[in-house]
Amino acid sequence: MNGRLLIANRGEIAVRIVRAAHELGLTSIVVHSEADTESLAVQLADEAVCIGPAQAAKSYLNIDAILTAARDSRADAVHPGYGFLSENAEFARRVEAAGMVFVGPDASLIERMGNKSEARATAMAAGVPVVPGSPGSVVGIDEATSVAGDVGYPLLIKAAAGGGGRGIRTARNESELREQLPLAQAEARAAFGDDSVYLERYIERARHIEVQILADGERAVHLFERECSLQRRRQKVFEEAPSPALSEQARQQLCESAVALAEHVGYRAAGTLEYLYDDDSGEFFFIEMNTRIQVEHPVTEMITGIDLVREMIRIALGQGLSLQQADIQRRGWAVEMRLNAEDPDKGFFPSPGRVEKLIWPTGPGIRIDSLLYEGYRMPPYYDSMVAKLIVWDETREAALKRAARALDEFCLEGFTTTAGLHRRLLDDPAIQSGDFHTGSLEVWLETQSQALSQPPSQPPSQPRPSSVEEAS
Amino acid sequence: MNGRLLIANRGEIAVRIVRAAHELGLTSIVVHSEADTESLAVQLADEAVCIGPAQAAKSYLNIDAILTAARDSRADAVHPGYGFLSENAEFARRVEAAGMVFVGPDASLIERMGNKSEARATAMAAGVPVVPGSPGSVVGIDEATSVAGDVGYPLLIKAAAGGGGRGIRTARNESELREQLPLAQAEARAAFGDDSVYLERYIERARHIEVQILADGERAVHLFERECSLQRRRQKVFEEAPSPALSEQARQQLCESAVALAEHVGYRAAGTLEYLYDDDSGEFFFIEMNTRIQVEHPVTEMITGIDLVREMIRIALGQGLSLQQADIQRRGWAVEMRLNAEDPDKGFFPSPGRVEKLIWPTGPGIRIDSLLYEGYRMPPYYDSMVAKLIVWDETREAALKRAARALDEFCLEGFTTTAGLHRRLLDDPAIQSGDFHTGSLEVWLETQSQALSQPPSQPPSQPRPSSVEEAS
Repeated sequence: MNGRLLIANRGEIAVRIVRAAHELGLTSIVVHSEADTESLAVQLADEAVCIGPAQAAKSYLNIDAILTAARDSRADAVHPGYGFLSENAEFARRVEAAGMVFVGPDASLIERMGNKSEARATAMAAGVPVVPGSPGSVVGIDEATSVAGDVGYPLLIKAAAGGGGRGIRTARNESELREQLPLAQAEARAAFGDDSVYLERYIERARHIEVQILADGERAVHLFERECSLQRRRQKVFEEAPSPALSEQARQQLCESAVALAEHVGYRAAGTLEYLYDDDSGEFFFIEMNTRIQVEHPVTEMITGIDLVREMIRIALGQGLSLQQADIQRRGWAVEMRLNAEDPDKGFFPSPGRVEKLIWPTGPGIRIDSLLYEGYRMPPYYDSMVAKLIVWDETREAALKRAARALDEFCLEGFTTTAGLHRRLLDDPAIQSGDFHTGSLEVWLETQSQALSQPPSQPPSQPRPSSVEEAS
Repeated sequence: MNGRLLIANRGEIAVRIVRAAHELGLTSIVVHSEADTESLAVQLADEAVCIGPAQAAKSYLNIDAILTAARDSRADAVHPGYGFLSENAEFARRVEAAGMVFVGPDASLIERMGNKSEARATAMAAGVPVVPGSPGSVVGIDEATSVAGDVGYPLLIKAAAGGGGRGIRTARNESELREQLPLAQAEARAAFGDDSVYLERYIERARHIEVQILADGERAVHLFERECSLQRRRQKVFEEAPSPALSEQARQQLCESAVALAEHVGYRAAGTLEYLYDDDSGEFFFIEMNTRIQVEHPVTEMITGIDLVREMIRIALGQGLSLQQADIQRRGWAVEMRLNAEDPDKGFFPSPGRVEKLIWPTGPGIRIDSLLYEGYRMPPYYDSMVAKLIVWDETREAALKRAARALDEFCLEGFTTTAGLHRRLLDDPAIQSGDFHTGSLEVWLETQSQALSQPPSQPPSQPRPSSVEEAS
């Protein structure tokens, strides 16, 4: 063990892992594509290795190139971040076969929990409620209509190998089911190399609530939940912890079910169990597990004070799980606003560019996780998320006010981001009351489209307004 | 009540109070001198009023000009920050007489606790131990030598109206006492308009530990202690919370004594009680009370999650003290590094200038309270502190590592700061073990002077080094 951690990712999560490595006294090695030679992660890391061209398939998804870089740089361990190869069982297996530690669960568990229908069966076996639907994959239309007869419409057709909101179709009646099923299977084959699909009841007014866990193979602890219902096209936009919807009793049930499932499979890593939560009935249903660190992990870190990235590295390095459940207390409220280089006024069209001016908000309760720096030119090849603005305060109301204060201080010139959208969201009564579900944001965006087509009064990507100046 | 708060200060504390005002939904009005028209506080505040020339006596210490600005801007309340008029009883009295709220204690309490010998007598009456010394002011040399006979040498001669480390002389024997007493009195008269001095035993290897309190006139709560022993010329350089020196029992005794003293005088505001703590004997002695917010308040905010500036404004506005002692829990460890525009290699000579480039460290556990922005030209008239880098983590060891990580990311071009000094301090075994007293930093600086005269290997005020780049 030379204390050398290779980071097989890019963007803000690569920066995040570099920082955790340095705080753990590890040497950080980032791999990067030819388009990322100027990235902040490359600048902050101890070492950087170019692994191929801009196209992700030739660099960040190129297992051979990454393993070569890891061997050549004498890495002891590989952190996959999120996205890219983070839930690729073959990658995990080949990292371990090369004598290095994969910072994540065993490859077999990535496969098992990565297959959504198998994850669903596993949850049922662990006594965790799942959304009513097919017990496993459905193959033919007869099997599908039979399931629909039991479960009822509307239904979701979901790719077993999908994730991140991709590979999902809706069927509101039998004719739609007959039409969509073969399309969904063909799409799943094309996107994931696996045409297995399964059916689930479509709960239209549900919340997306997820539970963070840490586990060492024998024992799991939860770090409470995150509320992630504010989504656009199934991509999370604004997350918070805790959820404004849960009673203490519901929170405890939900979190204990996550621990039970993690322990049932002998999970060993950081992980997230995603649930649908029905506000009206108080029912929750497991939908899937993410066997990696998530974008929105900082809100959990802010309320618990526990560094998830450091913990997952420690667990992977065999240092065990030091935390007892009773050690994990939550304090206050945290929200995360994803700032994407997209123009909400132009259908969220990507707007990459060069950072001409950048002023982060600072002061109490503000955390910035970002890939930006002044002078940085964003490559157009990758995800549009450029920063996460995370805000903590004593109460939810105070956190939202502080978030507004932070966005008012934020200044980015060079391209448009979704910061202005977040600023408007914070003024919305439904956001302030916490009364929303997974469909709310899209409805809100529809009703805002008129306002969005007009220039906002205080665009945060413009120079800050000068103060009223009076001579005395 | 129009919800309008005037901020009678400048620099980072003015920025801090503007932010608190905005988070409380108050309109912020900053006063500023002609040298501060470009300040960050002026830019962030809702309104700004110029109150006079650069020289503090004509602006930030000019009570008439500030009261005129407050009246003209229809302020409901005035926050004095720290320094300047923050502990000036006349200012507090005149603010209240003008029908506005002074964000601080009653003028009579500022006077009582601001007079060090009276504060000392008050502490004794409240049953709080004080450093052995004269019961009140000493006037003639006969009285002084008589006290010295009881207390023993070495002694400190302290100006009753002094504070912030100013107005203190040492006497190691009777001849020094005879020589220093009239000098101390003359100096006190010149500096503070009051020649009262008192004597205290000089505890040479003591820690400076202080307790933060909040009180509503009837009830006080403590927010634990801050360790502020690392000082240069009696100015704090590096602070932390909690103190690495205290057992839980000692902490409880110390904090309860602070609550007792605050309740004894019917204190109503945020305040700090400063103590000397003798590691060897475990004895603590009250030395003085600061009746204002302090520079180092963020470390307390980081471990307790309580916003002191907001709380003190709420208390002043008559909203009472919402906190019970049992609500106040501490979590983890916080350190604050004061970044001064001074050159440690040149005897800490002030080095003001223009901010040519500025990259703050970001990511988990980092808080920046600063007056800087890119392009800002520092006026040469005021205090040299330009930023406070505050770092929180789960343990002291982790906080120091994170602080080093943060300083390694920090980049400021345009002038020299004490950041490099802090980076070296973090590598020092005595800092890492927490084994130091109020004289330790000056000894350390002496022994470092050789190293300091050589260019540091990674000066944080230089562009960040590029990473090792390997092509694969």
